Amino acid sequence: MKKERNIYLENTDLEVALKGYLERFEEELENKPVETISVVDSLGRVTARPYFAKYSSPNFNASAMDGIAVKSENTFGAREGKPLTLVKGRDYKVVDTGDPIDGEYNAVIMIEDLNELSEEEVQIMTPASPWQHVRPVGEDIVAGEMIVSANHKIRPVDLASLINGGIDEIQVYARTKVGIIPTGTEIVEPGTILKRGDIIESNSRMFEGLTLECGAIPSRYQVVRDDYEEIKKTVMDSVEKNDITIINAGSSAGTEDYTKSIVEELGEVCYHGLSIKPGKPAILGKVKGKPVIGIPGYPVSAYMVFRNIAREIIMEFMSLHREKPAVIQAYLSKRIVSSYKYKEFVRVKLGKLGGKIIATPLNRGAGVLMSLVRCDGILVIPKEKEGFEASELVQIELLKDYSKIENTVVSIGSHDLVMDIVNNHIHMMDSMVDLSSAHTGSMGGIMALRKGECHLAPIHLLDEKTGIYNVPVLQKYLRGTDVVLVKGFGRTQGFMVQKGNPRNIKSLRDLSRDDVSFVNRQKGSGTRVLLDYRLKQEGMDRNDITGYEREMTTHMAVAAAVSSGTADVGLGVYSAAKTMNLDFIPLAEEEYDFAMLKEEMNNPKIKTFLKVIKSRKLKEELKELGGYTFENTGKVVKI
Amino acid sequence: MKKERNIYLENTDLEVALKGYLERFEEELENKPVETISVVDSLGRVTARPYFAKYSSPNFNASAMDGIAVKSENTFGAREGKPLTLVKGRDYKVVDTGDPIDGEYNAVIMIEDLNELSEEEVQIMTPASPWQHVRPVGEDIVAGEMIVSANHKIRPVDLASLINGGIDEIQVYARTKVGIIPTGTEIVEPGTILKRGDIIESNSRMFEGLTLECGAIPSRYQVVRDDYEEIKKTVMDSVEKNDITIINAGSSAGTEDYTKSIVEELGEVCYHGLSIKPGKPAILGKVKGKPVIGIPGYPVSAYMVFRNIAREIIMEFMSLHREKPAVIQAYLSKRIVSSYKYKEFVRVKLGKLGGKIIATPLNRGAGVLMSLVRCDGILVIPKEKEGFEASELVQIELLKDYSKIENTVVSIGSHDLVMDIVNNHIHMMDSMVDLSSAHTGSMGGIMALRKGECHLAPIHLLDEKTGIYNVPVLQKYLRGTDVVLVKGFGRTQGFMVQKGNPRNIKSLRDLSRDDVSFVNRQKGSGTRVLLDYRLKQEGMDRNDITGYEREMTTHMAVAAAVSSGTADVGLGVYSAAKTMNLDFIPLAEEEYDFAMLKEEMNNPKIKTFLKVIKSRKLKEELKELGGYTFENTGKVVKI
Repeated sequence: MKKERNIYLENTDLEVALKGYLERFEEELENKPVETISVVDSLGRVTARPYFAKYSSPNFNASAMDGIAVKSENTFGAREGKPLTLVKGRDYKVVDTGDPIDGEYNAVIMIEDLNELSEEEVQIMTPASPWQHVRPVGEDIVAGEMIVSANHKIRPVDLASLINGGIDEIQVYARTKVGIIPTGTEIVEPGTILKRGDIIESNSRMFEGLTLECGAIPSRYQVVRDDYEEIKKTVMDSVEKNDITIINAGSSAGTEDYTKSIVEELGEVCYHGLSIKPGKPAILGKVKGKPVIGIPGYPVSAYMVFRNIAREIIMEFMSLHREKPAVIQAYLSKRIVSSYKYKEFVRVKLGKLGGKIIATPLNRGAGVLMSLVRCDGILVIPKEKEGFEASELVQIELLKDYSKIENTVVSIGSHDLVMDIVNNHIHMMDSMVDLSSAHTGSMGGIMALRKGECHLAPIHLLDEKTGIYNVPVLQKYLRGTDVVLVKGFGRTQGFMVQKGNPRNIKSLRDLSRDDVSFVNRQKGSGTRVLLDYRLKQEGMDRNDITGYEREMTTHMAVAAAVSSGTADVGLGVYSAAKTMNLDFIPLAEEEYDFAMLKEEMNNPKIKTFLKVIKSRKLKEELKELGGYTFENTGKVVKI
Repeated sequence: MKKERNIYLENTDLEVALKGYLERFEEELENKPVETISVVDSLGRVTARPYFAKYSSPNFNASAMDGIAVKSENTFGAREGKPLTLVKGRDYKVVDTGDPIDGEYNAVIMIEDLNELSEEEVQIMTPASPWQHVRPVGEDIVAGEMIVSANHKIRPVDLASLINGGIDEIQVYARTKVGIIPTGTEIVEPGTILKRGDIIESNSRMFEGLTLECGAIPSRYQVVRDDYEEIKKTVMDSVEKNDITIINAGSSAGTEDYTKSIVEELGEVCYHGLSIKPGKPAILGKVKGKPVIGIPGYPVSAYMVFRNIAREIIMEFMSLHREKPAVIQAYLSKRIVSSYKYKEFVRVKLGKLGGKIIATPLNRGAGVLMSLVRCDGILVIPKEKEGFEASELVQIELLKDYSKIENTVVSIGSHDLVMDIVNNHIHMMDSMVDLSSAHTGSMGGIMALRKGECHLAPIHLLDEKTGIYNVPVLQKYLRGTDVVLVKGFGRTQGFMVQKGNPRNIKSLRDLSRDDVSFVNRQKGSGTRVLLDYRLKQEGMDRNDITGYEREMTTHMAVAAAVSSGTADVGLGVYSAAKTMNLDFIPLAEEEYDFAMLKEEMNNPKIKTFLKVIKSRKLKEELKELGGYTFENTGKVVKI
């Protein structure tokens, strides 16, 4: 059992590693297992050989219309003004679409062109030319013609055409079996009551989903604790039973990262360490001729390695055509710096503003899975490139349908829980419309609005001179633009402290006590402005406050810091304190409003937003949450 | 039991009918059935309510790196050149990524920044700032924040985030159950030995596939014969057990089209007849508050009605966001005329030529399902528009990935079975490359090449004066362009007759016999040129040949006409006769070659084509088929 740390990872380029790795399986890929299945079960499967029609379709000459079958030679006398009478049995028979046209007959006259004299006689005005309205044998496909080639993924129309062509069974590539092994002593199954240090296992479920999306068969193991021999035994079992094995995590260089040693013992490590971010500590191995892939534990790293390596291998094993993701061009809302040593995958939100697509980078942390949930696309920063400038035109790989992006209301500015709830109500009202909220603080919102990067900016900014919220600051920064303020919600700011208020915080003064640690909000946020304003009023020195420099970007993050005990107190809204089950000492009432361009108010998706904030349903939900007032909600104030 | 024909269908616009039809189900859509399922099984399902995190993720402060946990205050003395020694247990503990950072510690130093003196001591060169390399509680998501809204389709990343947030079960909309009833006395199940007039049932299998692609549950009935009471009984059973019922076919106005009467008897017919083509005779009904949709029998009509009506209804019932199909702009290769009374869906092949996308319409017959198999996209011709001109820029709804279209070799010209086989070999060599063949005859190919609408044109055109194949005609029509002729295959043309040659055809002369009916190829095809040349040589009059004016566009279509007995003889290649099990009387040896622009020969996909036609594997397959020679295959002739 090895216990030393493997500090030194290589830094192989993704493309080089993938190509080299696939080359290790050339023989296996030449001899992919095939199976014979019924055509009716073949949806989504890939043909292992071409299929040619056994029967023609149609297999006989058939009427193409509802009407009568005739011998065209017997109709040549008919003309306008000189109708010809045909007798049933002698001159014609009634046919429906699809009925066979036998040797005796060689044309069809449509029911619309008949003048029915009786049950037994019809009149026609025009002659029928030979083979008119007759579907010839093989109109669709002639026996011997190819229906689908080899390496073709069966769609519903292919399936029906194969059946039409008389094919009952087909040879397809077997579905690739993917063994997924979650490891880690600290990892627990969902539903477990969490002890301190426990992490709920979720990566393997994401891998299951991604495997199913490829049409492959996932086979997940129960979590294996960090024990070299146990993991080794499980890997051997998975390699025995599956085509591909995924080990998560233990692919890095920690004291309990065993994947590398195990793969080395059982087979060979082809690559360890990729020059991608997130996802660097991946391991690409080969055991008994099969791929064994070590995927790092951080969820975004896990996703990126699965998507860029495991998925590609699965697709190759199943002969699936790898579709290129749709790419759109977007303007970057802010500068982004990246290491030239790595190819980086940055998750971005997209929004369409004034005809331009704007991309706003989300949290780049490898541990922030929500950045993948929230993002609309991925900005790939190539290796050797140190980032992009603000307003630069960049390529974004779309993860959502483009029409969704066109229907997204982009909000940049102050954070409040209410934005999540509004988003949900919007989505309930019209599932095509989405609200995307970026939390940059109120000033960040005003700047974004000025640069045309958002449809609306939620703000709560107190003017120190007048004590008035929002209007003065908009007059200062956005004068000359056609901006309006839509009144939002009144809300209460105050101190969030642990349940029972163990430090006995009563007022602002307590923040400078030696035994009290504070957690702050970022500069430019309305909450920070409020704090600084009050400190000034009280004549307090910020340097006396322990933790003043520790900044969080949302109310919820402050609440989480207090809840977890890394700070004793933070400033935030009542709803955040309530949600996190904290005690709350009110400090001030404030106005949380929405700044937007006047012209945007006629934009249908903005109308949906305005409808929602004024809706009775929303008010009811916010009343239940508590801490909000609605006196002027929806009122428009000119600036 | 009703037997009269319902000739008069309305002609309701698709959008009007769909909107009106959905309005009939407003109540049902407000109260869609939901079910509670385990999150791990929720891939692809749609949330019926929003989900907020129950736990923060991470749920404790955790090390973000492999390294040591320290108290930052104890590290402030360290600096470059003046290392600080830390003692295990007293000053630090070893941590791996993800380990909890407890109250005592408040920072992590990465392993890369440590100088290990012994098992018990390390040196550091820089101080650790508070909370460095510590993932704060809720970095990913804070308890109370929204993970997904209502009406959200669960992806693998959502599934993992819900698990991270402590959600074990979720409420989703129930999967819509779709009853599919194939009807028709002439319709038989796949695998049945066909009698004359039998049609293999395949539409219902296509509907099953399309239903599964929506994530709904298909439930298919055995074929029901054309019996009013039996169909009615089956419809009642399906309405009982399913959310949506599809009846196929019997939606038109034939003597045995019962759908309308049955739906009227059991409920109401909301619409009968749509102004779309194919797909006009659709029936949109409501029985016991549930949609019952009558879909016409022609497979392309069936597809279009399912796609444009049934699929939309299913998506609406499952709260699925309907993605707009990707649309590209393409130049139409030929004029297309359409009725102003109908919105028409024309299947097109696409190819990229010289930076332009060219769209070539396929067979527009409602019975030609292969047009859907072969097409790359759909050109929608709006109602009130009578078509498009050649070279007009049109919008195409893509049915394939765009990268596939970029990798398609476009061949326009003469038809030979060999093109199917070459396509398959290309696809085996590189599944990304496709060969698209349009059969317009040799002259059509030359014209398409001249207009830049194809990469290559397969031709076999005899010059009457010199008796030389292909070169003179290229010199005549493509002089001045940089065209080359790549030699293809020698092949034998001759008369195809029924097995045993019942009409005793021996030579060209027999075509003008009174008891012999002929089937011809279209003008501009090499085979037609050959026939006319020989007729002239023999001094024969084409008016003496019965069936001279009956034109087919492929060798296989001619073979099918002979095989089915609608003609006694046709002219075509040996391989077609052999495939259709016909007798063959040789008439001439000819040269089937490929004209292409010289510059295209360096195009990678064309290189793949050239590699395939010269390959040993292809020759072996063609030898087995018979009737081909390969003397000069791949040789390049300058024009």
